[in-house]
Amino acid sequence: MEVYLDLENATPLPEPVLKAMLPYFGARAYGHSALTHRIGWEAYAAVEESLGRLALALGVPPEDLALTHDAVEAANLAFEGLILGRPIKRKTVVLSSIEPLNILYAAENLERHGFRVVKVPVDGEGFVREDALAEACTEDTHSVAVSWVSHEIGTIQRLDRLSAIVRERAPEAYFISDLSDAFGRLAFEGSALPIDIGLVTSYKVFGPRGAAALFKGKRAKLKPLLAGPYSTQPLWPGDENLPLLVGFAEAAERAMAELSARTAHMRRLRDRLVEGLLAIPHTMLNGPRTERAPDNANISFLGAEGEAITVECSDHGVYVSSGSACTRRMLQPSHVLLAIGRKYEAAHGSILMKISPFHTDADIDHVLKIFPEAIERLRKLSGFKEA
Amino acid sequence: MEVYLDLENATPLPEPVLKAMLPYFGARAYGHSALTHRIGWEAYAAVEESLGRLALALGVPPEDLALTHDAVEAANLAFEGLILGRPIKRKTVVLSSIEPLNILYAAENLERHGFRVVKVPVDGEGFVREDALAEACTEDTHSVAVSWVSHEIGTIQRLDRLSAIVRERAPEAYFISDLSDAFGRLAFEGSALPIDIGLVTSYKVFGPRGAAALFKGKRAKLKPLLAGPYSTQPLWPGDENLPLLVGFAEAAERAMAELSARTAHMRRLRDRLVEGLLAIPHTMLNGPRTERAPDNANISFLGAEGEAITVECSDHGVYVSSGSACTRRMLQPSHVLLAIGRKYEAAHGSILMKISPFHTDADIDHVLKIFPEAIERLRKLSGFKEA
Repeated sequence: MEVYLDLENATPLPEPVLKAMLPYFGARAYGHSALTHRIGWEAYAAVEESLGRLALALGVPPEDLALTHDAVEAANLAFEGLILGRPIKRKTVVLSSIEPLNILYAAENLERHGFRVVKVPVDGEGFVREDALAEACTEDTHSVAVSWVSHEIGTIQRLDRLSAIVRERAPEAYFISDLSDAFGRLAFEGSALPIDIGLVTSYKVFGPRGAAALFKGKRAKLKPLLAGPYSTQPLWPGDENLPLLVGFAEAAERAMAELSARTAHMRRLRDRLVEGLLAIPHTMLNGPRTERAPDNANISFLGAEGEAITVECSDHGVYVSSGSACTRRMLQPSHVLLAIGRKYEAAHGSILMKISPFHTDADIDHVLKIFPEAIERLRKLSGFKEA
Repeated sequence: MEVYLDLENATPLPEPVLKAMLPYFGARAYGHSALTHRIGWEAYAAVEESLGRLALALGVPPEDLALTHDAVEAANLAFEGLILGRPIKRKTVVLSSIEPLNILYAAENLERHGFRVVKVPVDGEGFVREDALAEACTEDTHSVAVSWVSHEIGTIQRLDRLSAIVRERAPEAYFISDLSDAFGRLAFEGSALPIDIGLVTSYKVFGPRGAAALFKGKRAKLKPLLAGPYSTQPLWPGDENLPLLVGFAEAAERAMAELSARTAHMRRLRDRLVEGLLAIPHTMLNGPRTERAPDNANISFLGAEGEAITVECSDHGVYVSSGSACTRRMLQPSHVLLAIGRKYEAAHGSILMKISPFHTDADIDHVLKIFPEAIERLRKLSGFKEA
């Protein structure tokens, strides 16, 4: 038996989504959209239809959407696209201290344009400290980025309150929010969110890799980072990748149509998983109990090193991710876990798991069988002594 | 019967290539590469293997390759990646006057960094004028871009001679060449080409959309345009799109393994097509007869407007592209055709067609049946009088 819980970094594409994409590779609408022949018209119509479905799932007008190939591109477009080609007076970007690396890197990249990045601390469960946010917002604040849901510890920020603080203290600042871990997990209408720019990623709603989107309100004027001919996407020149766009739209539509059933299912399995794992001694949940995304489980195991846990579990068919997955190559503890006050050892022994709508009780049974044994073996090896 | 000849802009994915990609969407190696679990190792191994296959097909060491999502990204990376983050003294980019729009836009985008773009004229068949190139290359020349094969009129430039001129007149200049229409059509070893940066695109070798690559020699130091975490691609951060990369590698390998058979087949069908169409009165071939890519056919029909021809042909199941396809939205005549001295009317009545290795004699028969009738109808409508 194999159970894949490393959904933070990649997702296997569900069969019905792949099936929806398949005709567009070579059987129909394979033409370049907007050319003057039937296959091109077919492609153009399919692009427009897919953008419409995606916009509807996000609750935004289609004209507010911009496609990119992935979350890195979307984050760069959000930050650099807001400042390119015009004089900018306000030169501070304010981030929560637990932003994912996509956001962090894209924001810090503005330093080459003379910007500075200020990080706002969070509390022990990852909620942005409102007093600190108020203090960080000044006349110099150009933009503020707080992910609605933390990729890593599942914290659901109180976006309304944070946005109100920003509006009051720095009314001209743009509010950017990564919604990748909110989309398909929380009910929302994009246009009604108190933000200027929202970012979502296809694979996180069980669509294909290679597609991401940004939507923006009226205030945010973006310029493209690249130069080139385009078909329907002026903010990211090049041609739409129709099969991937169809897959993204299909996945987004399914995620929203089945939202309550999916979230209830994910939450129930996630709660089983978390309770089962917290029954192992010397463990702690990272992130809040409630106000938490329904799919997210992040647990620290004292006396066992995260990388070692992932390998040990992998040997028994359970695939999980250690710490902040994106920092894995540096073998540093996650900046998110350090920000919520975890000591080095707890941060290093942390495991991130996500539940999909497609997991079953049998999957959780298997994980709860494998995990305690793996931790016990590793603790013996490391000579961990229970207090 | 339907015959799709608009391969300049999009290609239907051949079944065997799609088949090679399919397992990577959800059945295997769907993990994020380089993580510490089996599905991740599988993905990492598949990324490395695919990069190796692609590099082998291109005749370059894998470490010289950089992936992007498409040709627009690759062109921007080539031009802007050469100048970002360092002081640049030489500030002229020299282009052939028939560069494709991807190259043209990316080069002109450097104007915002204080660069100027100089265009070198070509002769009536699209060959770069060597005297003019020599004159354009000065101490201020930062880079020179000439596509080996013209996307639009198929001209195969004498790269060796052009490169020698650049080396002599502007020894420090970088030579950038779009090889999209050379790859899979001409025999070459990337590392032996007299260029610093080469660009190729997946769909042009009948791989999936969403993948392109750049390779570079030792002299060319590139910096990434975007900031973000990455797995194996420091020059374009983000995660590799494994299914698309597998498809690109598969398609590239097939293109090279079958190169002589494919080119002989394409050339034979293309010659049949061109001869058949030139039998229609008041037509002319654009681009050279020989020293021409084996798949390219570009013909001007006097007294018939290009867009109208595409629509008329489409109604009868023949899909072609009018003029410089990329400029279609502007309804301007192709800059390439104007550069080779075509008058406005001839440029406006031009049709671009490309033959794939998968076309058959029956396809050409059908096109040669439909086309003369379409031209005749349109000429009647426009009141064209034969001289």
